[in-house]
Amino acid sequence: MEAPVQLLDEGLPVRGVRLATAEAGVRYRDRPDLVLMALDEGCTTAALFTRNLFCAAPVTVAREHLHKGSPRYLIINSGNANAGTGDEGLRAARETCRAVAAMAGCAMSQVLPFSTGVIGEDLPLLPFQQAMPGLVKGLREDAWEEAARAIMTTDTRPKCRSTIVELEAGPVTITGIAKGSGMIRPDMATMLAYVATDAQIGGEKLQVMLERSVRGSFNSITVDGDTSTNDACVLVATGAAGSAPTGEDLQRFEQALGAVCFDLAREIVRDGEGATRLVDVEVRGAGSEEAARAVAYTVAESPLVKTALFAGDPNWGRILAAVGRAGVPLNIEAVRIWLDDVPIVSGGGRDLDYREEDGARVMAQNEYAIRIDLGQGDAGARVMTCDLSYDYVKINAEYRS
Amino acid sequence: MEAPVQLLDEGLPVRGVRLATAEAGVRYRDRPDLVLMALDEGCTTAALFTRNLFCAAPVTVAREHLHKGSPRYLIINSGNANAGTGDEGLRAARETCRAVAAMAGCAMSQVLPFSTGVIGEDLPLLPFQQAMPGLVKGLREDAWEEAARAIMTTDTRPKCRSTIVELEAGPVTITGIAKGSGMIRPDMATMLAYVATDAQIGGEKLQVMLERSVRGSFNSITVDGDTSTNDACVLVATGAAGSAPTGEDLQRFEQALGAVCFDLAREIVRDGEGATRLVDVEVRGAGSEEAARAVAYTVAESPLVKTALFAGDPNWGRILAAVGRAGVPLNIEAVRIWLDDVPIVSGGGRDLDYREEDGARVMAQNEYAIRIDLGQGDAGARVMTCDLSYDYVKINAEYRS
Repeated sequence: MEAPVQLLDEGLPVRGVRLATAEAGVRYRDRPDLVLMALDEGCTTAALFTRNLFCAAPVTVAREHLHKGSPRYLIINSGNANAGTGDEGLRAARETCRAVAAMAGCAMSQVLPFSTGVIGEDLPLLPFQQAMPGLVKGLREDAWEEAARAIMTTDTRPKCRSTIVELEAGPVTITGIAKGSGMIRPDMATMLAYVATDAQIGGEKLQVMLERSVRGSFNSITVDGDTSTNDACVLVATGAAGSAPTGEDLQRFEQALGAVCFDLAREIVRDGEGATRLVDVEVRGAGSEEAARAVAYTVAESPLVKTALFAGDPNWGRILAAVGRAGVPLNIEAVRIWLDDVPIVSGGGRDLDYREEDGARVMAQNEYAIRIDLGQGDAGARVMTCDLSYDYVKINAEYRS
Repeated sequence: MEAPVQLLDEGLPVRGVRLATAEAGVRYRDRPDLVLMALDEGCTTAALFTRNLFCAAPVTVAREHLHKGSPRYLIINSGNANAGTGDEGLRAARETCRAVAAMAGCAMSQVLPFSTGVIGEDLPLLPFQQAMPGLVKGLREDAWEEAARAIMTTDTRPKCRSTIVELEAGPVTITGIAKGSGMIRPDMATMLAYVATDAQIGGEKLQVMLERSVRGSFNSITVDGDTSTNDACVLVATGAAGSAPTGEDLQRFEQALGAVCFDLAREIVRDGEGATRLVDVEVRGAGSEEAARAVAYTVAESPLVKTALFAGDPNWGRILAAVGRAGVPLNIEAVRIWLDDVPIVSGGGRDLDYREEDGARVMAQNEYAIRIDLGQGDAGARVMTCDLSYDYVKINAEYRS
């Protein structure tokens, strides 16, 4: 999956997309918390949203508006998720769109709202109304990194990636930003991710590409197994680069898109709340991809595995116990488990060649892989996870207070 | 569920069962870590074991031996789980039975082995062999509390309950002990629980009763969602009290048995690793018991809910988000949620009468309930859980080291 695509840690401008940020004071003080993204006419847009049934008001409104046609503006706030807020929340989400539409001169349904932050508190509208004139006036093509910063909540750093793809018809740019660090087990996409390209791609094709890219990236990560009410991932193609890629060009483009999403997703896990390590749980030899994902997620979300990762303790029995309770039928004699390339389990128990110091050496690293071969088929899956540290508890016991 | 049965925090003797403990040094030093239980001839025995596919060697051997007939001895060690130990582990488990059989003069298959402790390390046999003469000589009817102490691992206190049931034919005693505090999401029974009665009950009836009692007790708790490789629950009826209960007597007996199991299960959660609070997650109005259990467990195991419980922070949006991702179809407008009797969610969002100080008051308590009405049927479920604290991470990052 990790394609040999050259990625930059910055936000290259994408012709046809302009951004602005503001310190609106939705909840935070003295930091940007509002982003306006303007899309030129003729853009195509694909989107994926959380499958959490208690989805946030802005998710409901964004879905409605997407059905009515192509969006021209995205308005994103951090600090308040506008989730669990009932009818009042829906009204507030619509009002934020109305504020954008009034100032920018478009239809209200051409605005998509997004929110991230604390659940269950009313979204204040005044900050939106007050910030709107400045936002509309301040739109620029080179504000991706500022936007990445403004959508942060408990993230410790902004997440931004760009790449240039050389196609037959000339280069196209892909730039993406994402936020998320807790309540991360996306069931559609991470909490919030926005990716844009100046390539020209039709809406249906764009949606299929987004779904494929998200499966191996934002939908293959976990921090704490909690699927957010607000997850959303948006992909915009402005077409400003000219002709539409086809054939091999399209493949090359999708590979680059996948790499941008993968790297952003990986950044989310690396910045997981309290995380000190990033661990890939790679399952192969499964009877189906679903079985592989079930085993990978069970290991990746086991609190006992995650505290052992934190401690750097090769207490591999916890990995074996998690595999055994994943709900997937197994011939345990055929299961093999490695830490990176160190075999730890085979033949139903500890590998005969295993030495504790070898396991400890792997687990002392900041990034490594737990590799599991179920020995029963050809399917596989990879899930990225992090450790469970004191700071995860601290961050989540103190958030809000 | 919580029956009006008078329970004692002690281990009343059960005629027909004798116990002994030893400081054998299986892993721990200077504390008892080995228990021998002797069952008089004519006892009936029911048992439930973990569904973890990587079950421990003693689980495999205990199952085999149960198939061969009624057990006369149970040998239980703490400190080493003899799990993930392959063929060597099976051999070791059998050797512990052989050591008992040789000293006690019974068949090897009349001994059931049980182990709890660290996974993946070879079980040393010498401690068993050395301790055996003293164990067999030391068997007494009044050693339940010592046994409860000897089976502890990360438990901070022994768990022992007794009750006397007045039946037509005279009083019978039920006494149970349990251990467990981490790797707790029993899929059959808690890590280890042993319950005995001097009532006379046939083997098949006893098994059915155990399964029913366990469903609402040991199989309705969670500390960290990790199902152990070694879970086992054994129920012994010695028949020493004479005639077999029938009709209402049998009902009264089963109610008392359920109460003993329930209270022991509750003790496990109360003593959950790092736990500072015990919270009942009660779901009703579900379309099926499975749906109710899915919602209850999703809430009870959400790290975000559990850290909020620890903080005493009525961040109820996390409860709502967990309900929404439980995989159960919902009409969110119909869902209602309470903290004890304080309504927090109705009509798809925050209850109109909810005030933060009311939620905070409930969550400041050490024990309370999260009550969820799905508004779609008559089924319900209750799951007992605890909070996720710094100490959970500390205990599990430092265990072994």
